[in-house]
Amino acid sequence: MVSEKTVSRLTTYRSLLRQLAATGATHVFSHQLADMARSTAAQVRRDLMVLNAYGNPRTGYLIEELQQSIDDYLSFSKGITTILVGVGSLGRALLAYFMTGRSHIRIVAAFDADPQKAGRTISGCRVYPPEELFQQVAGKNVHCALLAVPGSEAQKTADQLVKAGIPSIVNFAPVRIKVPPTVFVEDLDVTSSIEKAAFFGRHLPKAQEMKK
Amino acid sequence: MVSEKTVSRLTTYRSLLRQLAATGATHVFSHQLADMARSTAAQVRRDLMVLNAYGNPRTGYLIEELQQSIDDYLSFSKGITTILVGVGSLGRALLAYFMTGRSHIRIVAAFDADPQKAGRTISGCRVYPPEELFQQVAGKNVHCALLAVPGSEAQKTADQLVKAGIPSIVNFAPVRIKVPPTVFVEDLDVTSSIEKAAFFGRHLPKAQEMKK
Repeated sequence: MVSEKTVSRLTTYRSLLRQLAATGATHVFSHQLADMARSTAAQVRRDLMVLNAYGNPRTGYLIEELQQSIDDYLSFSKGITTILVGVGSLGRALLAYFMTGRSHIRIVAAFDADPQKAGRTISGCRVYPPEELFQQVAGKNVHCALLAVPGSEAQKTADQLVKAGIPSIVNFAPVRIKVPPTVFVEDLDVTSSIEKAAFFGRHLPKAQEMKK
Repeated sequence: MVSEKTVSRLTTYRSLLRQLAATGATHVFSHQLADMARSTAAQVRRDLMVLNAYGNPRTGYLIEELQQSIDDYLSFSKGITTILVGVGSLGRALLAYFMTGRSHIRIVAAFDADPQKAGRTISGCRVYPPEELFQQVAGKNVHCALLAVPGSEAQKTADQLVKAGIPSIVNFAPVRIKVPPTVFVEDLDVTSSIEKAAFFGRHLPKAQEMKK
């Protein structure tokens, strides 16, 4: 099984290749990708070997081909189907961001316990009451649930998602959730990321000290 | 210098201790924290040694004391001062989330190039035009900038933040940014996290197969 870190890096390369293609570039060297991804050329080449992708020593990798290889490997070609649970301020932002239709990530249904929200259509996405979760996800082959409920609701909601057969959860709630080993959880905790950045921003050697 | 992973785990323990304290608990064992953080008791004890915090073998760690130790170590006690750049849908969600006053993270100013937004107050936070960045951050001791501009604007904006002396950036834009080694960047790429979750959700052994 490929490691989480490798998959993370592949999604990063995918996003960098999109950036490069937008500038009109057709080829890229591993050292260029490494530079953009703050990695090493050797690491990039090792990661891309997972895809059986090898660059030409003179011209590098063909960007379009490499994008396709990553898409195929990560099964993005057919798009990623998600549901959103929790239509608070963060949930609304996720809808506004992903419902533009420009992404390969689709939110096919949203859920919120607030009767003011259930039944409405927000940013083009229908919001259902949580009781309709099972019925709405049936047959939709949902790949991932975006969990954006308050911390106090997160575990209860995750239990429902597991019962409904959702194979993976991106957890935006500021708490950890427990799921069976058959379900994958990716935590995306904004508070924790800010705390980490603030800590290292304070403790990195500063420009004036580096000049000494 | 303590590692990024250790700091990430300390922020996680901090959030878990907050959860535990809210339930009325006063003590916690390393194996309990490990269980909640999906780690091992040995790892938790190793991390907490960085703080010179040692649990009592019979009663575990005192939650309140441990919270204070982490806060002191990560310098959270006095709060974290941030600015927000980019008041689109994600930026608005960040304002709505952090301007409640319940967090130790404060957003002291927001910036947006859209003249419709600059000059307004959104969720209690004043929005300024980007030209006022230097003036507004002067003397405010900003620890961190939240970068929520479109990908095409990210690098240009990051350059301005660096010039303004901001020591760390949480980058929500779906592109990598380059900064001098004196500035810390934490990437928080929602698309990449969803892609990763969807991949592993597809490839983890499923319940029916595990029973075989």
